[in-house]
Amino acid sequence: MELGEVVVVAPDSPQSGMGHAITINNPLRLDQVEIHSGIMGWQCSGTPVDCVKIAIDKILHRKPDLCVSGINHGSNSSINVIYSGTMSAAMEGAIEGIPSVGFSLLDYSHQADLSAARHYVKIVAENILRDGLPQGSLLNVNIPKLSLKDIKGVKICRQAMAKWEEEFDERLDPNKRKYFWLTGKFQNYDKGEDTDVWALKNGYISVVPVQFDFTAHHAIPFLNNWKF
Amino acid sequence: MELGEVVVVAPDSPQSGMGHAITINNPLRLDQVEIHSGIMGWQCSGTPVDCVKIAIDKILHRKPDLCVSGINHGSNSSINVIYSGTMSAAMEGAIEGIPSVGFSLLDYSHQADLSAARHYVKIVAENILRDGLPQGSLLNVNIPKLSLKDIKGVKICRQAMAKWEEEFDERLDPNKRKYFWLTGKFQNYDKGEDTDVWALKNGYISVVPVQFDFTAHHAIPFLNNWKF
Repeated sequence: MELGEVVVVAPDSPQSGMGHAITINNPLRLDQVEIHSGIMGWQCSGTPVDCVKIAIDKILHRKPDLCVSGINHGSNSSINVIYSGTMSAAMEGAIEGIPSVGFSLLDYSHQADLSAARHYVKIVAENILRDGLPQGSLLNVNIPKLSLKDIKGVKICRQAMAKWEEEFDERLDPNKRKYFWLTGKFQNYDKGEDTDVWALKNGYISVVPVQFDFTAHHAIPFLNNWKF
Repeated sequence: MELGEVVVVAPDSPQSGMGHAITINNPLRLDQVEIHSGIMGWQCSGTPVDCVKIAIDKILHRKPDLCVSGINHGSNSSINVIYSGTMSAAMEGAIEGIPSVGFSLLDYSHQADLSAARHYVKIVAENILRDGLPQGSLLNVNIPKLSLKDIKGVKICRQAMAKWEEEFDERLDPNKRKYFWLTGKFQNYDKGEDTDVWALKNGYISVVPVQFDFTAHHAIPFLNNWKF
């Protein structure tokens, strides 16, 4: 509120792992709701990315000055940027040409201490509103589970090369038919000290600039040697 | 079959626009089914990315030599790579360290002519099996709606900077409540002749190397000037 007028548009159900999904085969609902006493927002039946699209077309009728996604509970560092509905919503904002940022806090608790987040979200937002962001980029900001005074600062990072090692948890339903729960362990193979995973582990807030041009430019000369 | 043993794992329902979604809040089902007379495959209740994960852990019990996703009906060129379940499944294969490729045909018809696709899918697969792919990359291959003899060749491309201009189609249900269908027009702002959109429009198959390191490395110096 200190920085401008805030319009909240959020999915009406949990969207963990929703990635950049959009709703094509079903229609969407959009309803105004009271989120706190006197503070209104919009709930949408779609995905986080749907929320950004419908907010522009049906609520704002223009591009906002800033698109803030989150705050997400749980890390969206490293490869999680790909699976994250929070980060995909920010990416959608950036595709629309809106300065965009996603925030995540490394604390799953609904009672999480948001004081450090509140402090740094404002600073990041102020920086973006003042300077904008380089063309074709958005920000992925992750905040460690630390009190404001214990946070060492902010590091500009690259995405760590890490991944999830999946193991599906296999069970039998009452009819003796198998079903599977996705589980996994996060494995960081990246020893770099310029990564988001390193920063978070060492008490820093990580800021990774993210792009939606996925072209692996370095691979083009290799492929130009192929015969078709 | 000429190149090796094929194991098919596919979602059991349409997955258009599913992006890199994974199924966290529900369990998955996995069943063996006959896809053509005598040819068996697996159907999974999850997303395209879930299919890749469960195939490795519960069907193959190892990494395959090649992960082929598709063939998708409709273009996954340009920004569509982000929304595409087909391309996200290939990306998941690449994250797992498997040489991976997604194929799309610019023809939505179920009676589409697949002869050109059949010819070029084999050549691309042979190239990948022989040479591998540069670290951290996968391929996004799009095939124009042309007969084999009318295709001019294959172009190695970058992702065109294009996007969808959304317009939600607003309707009233029988109870007079509003609902919205996502629609949009594809807008290409990219005049480059080295893009996938250009190649497809000019009768070529487009091959874009894609990466899952989303770091916008060019934006790091800009951000390092910020005060926190």
